[in-house]
Amino acid sequence: MDMEKVNSMDFGEFVDVFGNVIERCPLIAAAVWSQRPFSDLEDLEKHFSAFIDALPQSGQEGVLRCHPDLAGRELQRGTLTAESQREQGAGLTSLGAEERLRAELNAQYRARFGFPFVLAARLSDREAVLRELARRLHRPPALELRTALGEVKKIGRLRLADLVGADP
Amino acid sequence: MDMEKVNSMDFGEFVDVFGNVIERCPLIAAAVWSQRPFSDLEDLEKHFSAFIDALPQSGQEGVLRCHPDLAGRELQRGTLTAESQREQGAGLTSLGAEERLRAELNAQYRARFGFPFVLAARLSDREAVLRELARRLHRPPALELRTALGEVKKIGRLRLADLVGADP
Repeated sequence: MDMEKVNSMDFGEFVDVFGNVIERCPLIAAAVWSQRPFSDLEDLEKHFSAFIDALPQSGQEGVLRCHPDLAGRELQRGTLTAESQREQGAGLTSLGAEERLRAELNAQYRARFGFPFVLAARLSDREAVLRELARRLHRPPALELRTALGEVKKIGRLRLADLVGADP
Repeated sequence: MDMEKVNSMDFGEFVDVFGNVIERCPLIAAAVWSQRPFSDLEDLEKHFSAFIDALPQSGQEGVLRCHPDLAGRELQRGTLTAESQREQGAGLTSLGAEERLRAELNAQYRARFGFPFVLAARLSDREAVLRELARRLHRPPALELRTALGEVKKIGRLRLADLVGADP
């Protein structure tokens, strides 16, 4: 898909295609449509990031709260979006000892920060995910919010590249 | 459901219950959770409205773009959310002459404002909807944006009252 095609979309098409670039936040894609035309993929990404950065803190936390909890109840219930299922890879849907530890750390993380642990999981193996969760669990909340939003943007960048058909 | 129950919800439960108070914008419910505890239904409503008011214009337009197009392609495709289907009432899913006129006016409205025509349809009969669409089609864009967001809030108020089980 080239940018000419992207720029020719009406808002309905644009939201259909890009609505889940930020997990369960079609509002953000719908807002980004106001910024068309886009010069290239990087420009398109930039507008998704800028929108998130401009949200009040509650809105940034809200973006994170729309993400599935890795090893959390959405995985157990099977209500992940197709994109999330793919990104979280094979094997994470059955709960072994490692997953129980992760579920416990996740619960602590949620209680401490008020949003779920978000990581661009496609980039990491399972052990790295657990290590990263343990590392981030004790950071200052303001710093962790920034880190978590960075992961949201990284996920969005990968999804955009998939959708537009470019190398990330 | 009393406010004590609402205030005791973790963000996952809160988003499950209130995620579609603003159509397809769970981000907004997820952000509003930051403002708990809520003193009463009116207080809860106020935070949904305040979040919308604080969005940049692109975000406010984005909220509107997440709404189904009355008599538009979502109706024809049958992809309305359960709430929208109920609110739009019986008979609006078959396209007769009046619906074709409405589809035409809707298309003009979308082209002019860059978002779909939104109306708290549960409050009106079909003729009133068409009359309102024709009336709003030629207003100044800034004024129409405010009016449309007012309808979003009205819809949200009705949905909140339904969910909490109070009279609107």
